[in-house]
Amino acid sequence: MTNSNRLIIFDTTLRDGEQSPGASMTREEKVRIARQLERLRVDVIEAGFAAASPGDFEAIRAIASVIKDSTICSLSRANERDIARAAEALLPAPRKRIHTFIATSPLHMQVKLRMSPEQVLEQAKQAIRYARQHTDDIEFSPEDGSRSEEDFLCRVLEGVIAEGATTINFPDTVGYAVPEVFGETIRRLRERIPNSDKAIWSVHCHNDLGLAVANSLAGVTIGGARQIECTINGLGERAGNTALEEVVMAVRTRPDIFKLELGIDTTQIVAASKMVSQITGFAVQPNKAVVGANAFAHASGIHQDGMLKSRETYEIMRAEDVGWAATKIVLGKLSGRNAFKQRLQELGIDLKTEDDVNAAFARFKELADRKSEIFDEDIMALVSDEEHASEGEHYRFVSLAQQSETGKTPKAKVVFTMDGQEHTCEGEGDGPVDATVNAIEKQAASGAELVLFSINAISNGTESQGEVTMRLSRSGRIVNGVGSDPDIIVASAKAYLSGLNKLHSKIERVNPQL
Amino acid sequence: MTNSNRLIIFDTTLRDGEQSPGASMTREEKVRIARQLERLRVDVIEAGFAAASPGDFEAIRAIASVIKDSTICSLSRANERDIARAAEALLPAPRKRIHTFIATSPLHMQVKLRMSPEQVLEQAKQAIRYARQHTDDIEFSPEDGSRSEEDFLCRVLEGVIAEGATTINFPDTVGYAVPEVFGETIRRLRERIPNSDKAIWSVHCHNDLGLAVANSLAGVTIGGARQIECTINGLGERAGNTALEEVVMAVRTRPDIFKLELGIDTTQIVAASKMVSQITGFAVQPNKAVVGANAFAHASGIHQDGMLKSRETYEIMRAEDVGWAATKIVLGKLSGRNAFKQRLQELGIDLKTEDDVNAAFARFKELADRKSEIFDEDIMALVSDEEHASEGEHYRFVSLAQQSETGKTPKAKVVFTMDGQEHTCEGEGDGPVDATVNAIEKQAASGAELVLFSINAISNGTESQGEVTMRLSRSGRIVNGVGSDPDIIVASAKAYLSGLNKLHSKIERVNPQL
Repeated sequence: MTNSNRLIIFDTTLRDGEQSPGASMTREEKVRIARQLERLRVDVIEAGFAAASPGDFEAIRAIASVIKDSTICSLSRANERDIARAAEALLPAPRKRIHTFIATSPLHMQVKLRMSPEQVLEQAKQAIRYARQHTDDIEFSPEDGSRSEEDFLCRVLEGVIAEGATTINFPDTVGYAVPEVFGETIRRLRERIPNSDKAIWSVHCHNDLGLAVANSLAGVTIGGARQIECTINGLGERAGNTALEEVVMAVRTRPDIFKLELGIDTTQIVAASKMVSQITGFAVQPNKAVVGANAFAHASGIHQDGMLKSRETYEIMRAEDVGWAATKIVLGKLSGRNAFKQRLQELGIDLKTEDDVNAAFARFKELADRKSEIFDEDIMALVSDEEHASEGEHYRFVSLAQQSETGKTPKAKVVFTMDGQEHTCEGEGDGPVDATVNAIEKQAASGAELVLFSINAISNGTESQGEVTMRLSRSGRIVNGVGSDPDIIVASAKAYLSGLNKLHSKIERVNPQL
Repeated sequence: MTNSNRLIIFDTTLRDGEQSPGASMTREEKVRIARQLERLRVDVIEAGFAAASPGDFEAIRAIASVIKDSTICSLSRANERDIARAAEALLPAPRKRIHTFIATSPLHMQVKLRMSPEQVLEQAKQAIRYARQHTDDIEFSPEDGSRSEEDFLCRVLEGVIAEGATTINFPDTVGYAVPEVFGETIRRLRERIPNSDKAIWSVHCHNDLGLAVANSLAGVTIGGARQIECTINGLGERAGNTALEEVVMAVRTRPDIFKLELGIDTTQIVAASKMVSQITGFAVQPNKAVVGANAFAHASGIHQDGMLKSRETYEIMRAEDVGWAATKIVLGKLSGRNAFKQRLQELGIDLKTEDDVNAAFARFKELADRKSEIFDEDIMALVSDEEHASEGEHYRFVSLAQQSETGKTPKAKVVFTMDGQEHTCEGEGDGPVDATVNAIEKQAASGAELVLFSINAISNGTESQGEVTMRLSRSGRIVNGVGSDPDIIVASAKAYLSGLNKLHSKIERVNPQL
């Protein structure tokens, strides 16, 4: 089984990626990303952790209902209730996987679980038996596995494989591994465990030392793993998870070394990257491999002077192969509703009802009145903005007026609704954004602290829309508000209100350490 | 020699990092970064490529004059003129290195150099003889080495070592290498070349497949290299170079694996990262290892709920060890000139004359009038801004008034000087930034195209200054303009004018492919 050359790509953007502080997504956003992951042809989509919250449950269920080609997976602790919840959320999926985990390190077993090793072993096996009532596709992860005692780890993994676990995932939770040692650990485990060839082995790495991609690949080449868990843009807690785009392009670019088959449609990589970045507000740095704005010199229109530099000679990947293409003007003021609807479909945006399409079209016409050229990115931002606005109805932007002048104090007047009621507030500040936030806070009095503020143009030039991300913190909870508008002060007001909406809909959840 | 456990850190932020489109820096900026690299205790600072342009020459000379602890290096082609120019620029340095290179791949020799292999071999040896007239510390790189014929490569490297090259650097120019193979290549070269132990071997990797750190480390552990070439934040063309902070923290965090000694003061890493990001306008993504805003969970004030998570248990590095610290309010409206001057010194900012200090202090007081809390980042931005403004006198910001209101067209009035003469221009646009740029272009008529626009808050909250980066393109040349101000529209105007100044001072240069 593990001798096959097929490498399974398991995307956990929606589960481990979303655990990154500020990266929480709405159900609609998750469905949109899942559709893009399906277009990317990832083998498995970990859609969430069903028992973590009703929101997670609903998101997994919605994804299970629409995705046909990829296997949908839910995480669950190793208990009957969690597993039943995962199975229920996955019910509509044509292909489903339950991914269950329990801690196997001495510290976690003692302090967190308050269980003996024998109890943990028994519970792990029991969990596989529960899961088998719902599906034959079962993944098991030993939480904090890299700090577990190896003899015990072997007993647990042998036990769960015997019970029917089909994938064994070995996590480097804290990003401490180095490639050769990590690969050797997996090889040793596979050698020591008698029934190890009855399961596909998987790796799950974090990038704290910049080694996630190399560790994952060593897990495959040295350790014999055939599944890599990863996220778009390397999204994830701290320095993030293994970046899907990097590990996929390494395997694809060096077939001479890796000799592995992949199902991925790499031309969907850039679209996936942009979508995840836009939805979470986590920017991608220009010198990021594969998906950074500078990653392909010629794509940013750069002349290379004084050097012989034919493209074939210097490029190890082609920009088109990962989906970089010149941004095109797709629609304008005169575009009709049908053209708009067709473009939505081409972009993979499914609006549920004709009313939703009408609302989006109205916003499109309003934008086209103010912005002569409408790009794909604008349409995606517009729909995203619409979803942000509708997800929590508590705060809603209405209008804004602001001015600043050298030597005078910047002023802003913001009209917005709270719980349906309209308020007009004025504020002053160090700059127009500060004045805008102060105006809103006069009425909202949220007590939120702004911990990060950034703006990126959605398409090129100042005529583009500005996309503002505001990271708000309150009582230890962190959310990213996102807003877009050709006027960056308006975009800032929308972002702030979107953040307040997210804080308003408080969700408690459990974050496992995989 | 190569059996020592001392790992040499060779920083090329100012040479290969600066080759990244849009990352060009002024002399003053380079000196500021060099001082920070000295505080970071890097062993070698590659300060530029002396023969590339008069600006490069002057920057190397200025750095050679002020840096005492690190070796200063200039790149040079393998000819007498280039080497003489490098030596001249390095003259004031207490410790100096000449880094010379020539292409050794069949394609480059034939098409670019139009030389036979024998001629290339002879010229490489001759170059070392030239360089030895100026210093004993000589590095040689075979350009496009990874695509060179191995027998020939061995002859060239043996030849240059025999002539006195003390460091042999092996580049993975196009970022195509994978760790084990890369390490084995270096091991094989070292085994095949009889005098290989007379030189220290070095690796120079690019991150196109996300493997630069792993490749560099494999070059050390498998190949026996003892120098790593790297840049702060992994700055560099395309996906960038090996990130200094990642490779250093991997070695420091895993002494059990690497068993290497490093001279680096890791507590200076975050300051270096922020400085390079601020000066180049290349943002660092939040999930970047070591220096990303999210890299250390507790540093961003995040509560971890529901899980046992003592810091010692889950953190493989401590945030303090790489220089993360809570941003402190350091100065305010009532702070005097002495307090300001002392803080400048603590931040490593050396202003040349008392007039410069006075000018910076005046700007500080002006800022303190508008912003109640002044952070270290503000002071750095203020000095940076001052340097941007003075570097090219052609365009200079004077004042701005702007307004926008829902339902009306945004308007801006900008006053700025061109060549000392004041102009007042008005513009309209989709938003206030667009209106501001349109106003400036009415007079400047530069023909520049804005290809990227981003804003990051320098410190937390909307009260912070906004730092705007505008990447302008004209006739294939790309520059980053940077501007900061509590009012982001003013910051945008400054950034645009700073970009126009950089375009105004046109520099032609040669970019080697290492």
